[in-house]
Amino acid sequence: MREAFHDQLDGIFADLSEICGQVEVAVREATKALMTGDVHTAEQVIGNDKAIDAARERVDDTAFALLSLQQPVAGDLRIVVSALRMVSELERMGDLSVHVAKIARLRVPSVAVPEELRPTMEKMAATAEDMVRRVRSIIIDRDVEAAIELGRDDEVMDQLRRKSFTELLSTDWHHGVEAAVDIALLGRYYERIADHAVSVANRVVFVVTGEVPAKD
Amino acid sequence: MREAFHDQLDGIFADLSEICGQVEVAVREATKALMTGDVHTAEQVIGNDKAIDAARERVDDTAFALLSLQQPVAGDLRIVVSALRMVSELERMGDLSVHVAKIARLRVPSVAVPEELRPTMEKMAATAEDMVRRVRSIIIDRDVEAAIELGRDDEVMDQLRRKSFTELLSTDWHHGVEAAVDIALLGRYYERIADHAVSVANRVVFVVTGEVPAKD
Repeated sequence: MREAFHDQLDGIFADLSEICGQVEVAVREATKALMTGDVHTAEQVIGNDKAIDAARERVDDTAFALLSLQQPVAGDLRIVVSALRMVSELERMGDLSVHVAKIARLRVPSVAVPEELRPTMEKMAATAEDMVRRVRSIIIDRDVEAAIELGRDDEVMDQLRRKSFTELLSTDWHHGVEAAVDIALLGRYYERIADHAVSVANRVVFVVTGEVPAKD
Repeated sequence: MREAFHDQLDGIFADLSEICGQVEVAVREATKALMTGDVHTAEQVIGNDKAIDAARERVDDTAFALLSLQQPVAGDLRIVVSALRMVSELERMGDLSVHVAKIARLRVPSVAVPEELRPTMEKMAATAEDMVRRVRSIIIDRDVEAAIELGRDDEVMDQLRRKSFTELLSTDWHHGVEAAVDIALLGRYYERIADHAVSVANRVVFVVTGEVPAKD
């Protein structure tokens, strides 16, 4: 019984890492669409989100079956509930990538990000993508140290977001209100992707150690 | 056993409605701080969020105890997991109110919302607050019809958000980039509060009927 439980749990974590891989693609391609104004790539990100939603439903079903049939208690119960929470955060990260892709699509044939904002926005996007990639490894390896490190690196995203605001509010901004609104919302979306990545990593720590990492 | 289960479940739903009441206060007071530039009220919303977080933890603990001790299966299991999801959405709605309060605080002694944007922003805030109030009744009465109606009214929020963008992007906008960024983010926060309200309402439908309402 216990062995069956842990086999099924491993299956759930394999699914989580696969979904995390799909999210990684979504973040990367949404950023590509954003930076190049490529409508085809934007449409692909938007269309592919259905696959992430469907994968999330499968994990939900498997986790419910596990809860019903194996009736785990204590730590095992908390692990399964953590998996349910992780998958809903991963789905949300997919949704946020879709939001990025939709801003990209809205501005085609232009590009939403003005030239001088590109370095900061590209760093935000790269940071978000990197965090998603690392979360995937963290899920696969149940790597507590890497998870705690990821939480610390979230500060990088906060700094980048502040930098983008400083650039936006500089006195020589001449790209108009529409571009400013796009930048503000894009910054918010990438920041939320990073937040969710940290949260998923923290749940891995909890799954392995039974303890939630302390908030700074 | 079954009776004990349902008593404890009723207790969880009573806690959920109470937290929803705290969120309603947070949304209302954050809006008040935003529209009046009242730093004291903004600080209160930010400070009170700890109580919402603590209440969420209590619901989590109760739900876990229920799962461990009563080992519900099938429909009962899904109800408890739904309650866990509802409480995390309510907590998030509290966080979003804090974001609104922080924008208010940042602009003191000014007011973040320019005069001609006030009508639309006030309607967005009132719509969000009204949806939270209705969700509370929906939780208390397990009112499926009201829940389905709430989902339909979400369209009002989408229209208001589009309206605020039109106003922002009108050619005679002269409030600068900072105000535009504030409006864009505030609109996003209120929209997300409304999204979560609909999601909580849908979970009530699921708890009562065992079916998730169809997405439009």
